[in-house]
Amino acid sequence: MNEESFVASLLGRLRDDPSLSRGLLVGPGDDAALLQPSRESLVVTTDLLSDEVDFLVDRAAPELIGRKAIAVNLSDLAAMGARPAAAVVSVLLPRGRRGGVLAEKMVEGMLPILRAYRTSLAGGDTNSWPGKLAVSVTAFGYVPAKKAFLRTGARPGDRILVTGALGGSIHRRQFTFCPRVPEALFLRERGVVRAAMDISDGLLLDLSRLANASNVGFRLDLENIPIHGDVDLFPPAEKRSPLEHALGDGEDFELILAVSPDDAAGLLAEQPLVPKKEAKRSTAKKSSAAKSFTSFCADQGFPPPEGVLLTDIGEFLPREKGFLQTDQAGKTRPLKKFSGWEHYF
Amino acid sequence: MNEESFVASLLGRLRDDPSLSRGLLVGPGDDAALLQPSRESLVVTTDLLSDEVDFLVDRAAPELIGRKAIAVNLSDLAAMGARPAAAVVSVLLPRGRRGGVLAEKMVEGMLPILRAYRTSLAGGDTNSWPGKLAVSVTAFGYVPAKKAFLRTGARPGDRILVTGALGGSIHRRQFTFCPRVPEALFLRERGVVRAAMDISDGLLLDLSRLANASNVGFRLDLENIPIHGDVDLFPPAEKRSPLEHALGDGEDFELILAVSPDDAAGLLAEQPLVPKKEAKRSTAKKSSAAKSFTSFCADQGFPPPEGVLLTDIGEFLPREKGFLQTDQAGKTRPLKKFSGWEHYF
Repeated sequence: MNEESFVASLLGRLRDDPSLSRGLLVGPGDDAALLQPSRESLVVTTDLLSDEVDFLVDRAAPELIGRKAIAVNLSDLAAMGARPAAAVVSVLLPRGRRGGVLAEKMVEGMLPILRAYRTSLAGGDTNSWPGKLAVSVTAFGYVPAKKAFLRTGARPGDRILVTGALGGSIHRRQFTFCPRVPEALFLRERGVVRAAMDISDGLLLDLSRLANASNVGFRLDLENIPIHGDVDLFPPAEKRSPLEHALGDGEDFELILAVSPDDAAGLLAEQPLVPKKEAKRSTAKKSSAAKSFTSFCADQGFPPPEGVLLTDIGEFLPREKGFLQTDQAGKTRPLKKFSGWEHYF
Repeated sequence: MNEESFVASLLGRLRDDPSLSRGLLVGPGDDAALLQPSRESLVVTTDLLSDEVDFLVDRAAPELIGRKAIAVNLSDLAAMGARPAAAVVSVLLPRGRRGGVLAEKMVEGMLPILRAYRTSLAGGDTNSWPGKLAVSVTAFGYVPAKKAFLRTGARPGDRILVTGALGGSIHRRQFTFCPRVPEALFLRERGVVRAAMDISDGLLLDLSRLANASNVGFRLDLENIPIHGDVDLFPPAEKRSPLEHALGDGEDFELILAVSPDDAAGLLAEQPLVPKKEAKRSTAKKSSAAKSFTSFCADQGFPPPEGVLLTDIGEFLPREKGFLQTDQAGKTRPLKKFSGWEHYF
C-alpha cells in the first residue's frame, strides 16, 4: 500500500462519517483544512510519540499506539479547560508492507477516540522512511479566553484536588486512559478551577511545575493520595511502594486542580464527578449534582462517565514555605525525594 | 543537553522576542498555547519532513532543514490565501550530543523565517530517540471563510497562472524558497483567485490534482512554462530537458492559480507582483499596482518582495476535454506523459 492509496481510503471513510468532520468547512484533501470561526480562544497543543520512548512497537498493539497519540493531546486540552475541535496527525512509517499495516491499525485506534471526544480529523501527513515508527498529533480546541485553566493561577490556601487515581499506568492505562475532557468542561462551567495541569510525568514532578508556574509552595497529604489498583500489577520484587508509584510513575493523565477551600469543600460534598455507580454507594449522596455530570456528558455528546472521584490531596502554600509533605502519622516536613523521581529536582 | 534545558533556553529566547509571540495569550510552557480569538476561519496544515526522504541530514545544513520545515507549511497556508498566525514544531532527535546540536541549529533556521512571515511559535515537543532526524510542523492561519483559495473553484475558461519559475529546486531552492504568503494575501485582497494550490510534487501532478478537484480539464502552453535558471545546475549528462524539469521536479512551492480571463489579463498587464527591480525594466510598467504590492508588503510587515512574475501557462477546459498540451509549434494534443512523473497517473 502506498501513501496515496492509504490516504484516499482514509478520506473516503472520513467523508462517510460526519462525526469526524464536525466544524470543518474544508476537510483533508486540500492544501489545508478550513474550520468554521469561533468566538472563543483557540487552544493548540502538540505531542510526539515515538518507538522505544513512548511505546514499544513490538509489544503494543498499533491500535493502542494510535489511540494514545490522540488521547495524550486531548488530555492537554482538558488541562486547559478547552473543548476539543480537531486534530491533525503525522506518522512516520517503517518502509514496506509492515508500515502500511501499522498505519491502518493505528487509524482504527484513532477514529473511535476522536469520535468519542467530538474531535474532527482535519488532516495529516505520512512518510514511509528507513526508520522507526513515530506519530505526531496536534490538537485544537476552544475556550473562552478568561476561562482557560492555566498553570499560573494557584494561590496560597487553595486546595490541591486530583481526578481519579494514580500509579501503575505503565501496565495498561497509559494506552487506555480516558482524557478528562468532560470533567474539565463540567468544572469549567462551575467556574471553580484556578489552575490545572494534567499528570504526564508523575504527580510530584507535575505538581512542582504547577507550583513553580504559580509561584507558590504546597503541602501534600501523603495518606490521601489516591493510589490506583494497577500498582498491584507490579511484580512482588518491585522495590517501590504503592505510594511511590502513585507519586512518581506518570502517564496517569489525571488532572491536578487548584480550587479555593470553599469551592473544594462544595465539590467534595457533592462529588459531582461521581455519577451512577459510585453515587449508589451512599443514598445520601445520590445528589442532583452527581446526576448533573451524567446528564452534562449526555447533553454534550460525550460517553457516559465512569465513576470519577475528586480527591483533596493537600494545599498550596506561600512560596517561601517550599514543598512539604504530611505523612500518615500527621508529621509535616520537607517533601522527601523518593527514588525514581529525584533527578527531576 | 537534555530536553528540559533545551526547551528552557528556547522559552527564554521566545519571551524576549515579541515578534514570535504575537497573538499568543499564553505561549509555550503551559499544557497548551492559548491564542486570541479571530473572527476569521481557522486554516490548519501539517507537513512532516524526515531524513532520507525530504533531506539528507549529512548533506543539508540543519538550519536549512529547520527553515524548510516551516516554509513548506507556510506555503500551504499561502495556497489557501490564509494569513499565518502560529506554528507548533515537533522534532525527533537522534540520541546524544549530535541531537542537541541539530536541535539548536534547526531552531536558528526556524526563527528568522517565522519572524519574516509574522508567524508565532506556539509550542512544540522534542523526543531524543534511537532513530533518525524528523521534524513535524503544524501551521495555522486565518482567512475569511468565503475568501479561502480552494482547489475546487477552477472553471472551464479560467486561465492557469503560476508564480515565479519552475524546475531544479533540488539544488538549493527546496531549502531557500520564499513561501508566497504576501503574494497570496495581495491577490486575495484583489478578489481574483478562483482556485489555488502550491506546487510540491511538480506542476503536472499538482495541476492535475487541482483540475480533478475542480472537475475540469486543462490545456497547457508548453512554450510559456517559466523555467527556473536552476535547471542549468544539473550535470550536462542529465537526460531530462529543462522543460521536463520545470514540469516534473516539484518542491517549487510556487502557486498555481485559476483566474478568469479578464482578471488574468488585468493582472498580467499590471504585473502587480513585479515590484522595484523588475518594474525598472519597463518605464511604462512602473505602475501604481507594482508599487502597491511593494507597499502592501511594507504595510503588512512582510519582507520587501523580490521580482515575482505571474505567468499565464494555459487554460482550464471542460472536464471531457481531458488534459491537453500545446507545443512550441502550436500543435495541441493529449498531454504527454514525460518520464519522471508518469507513475503519478
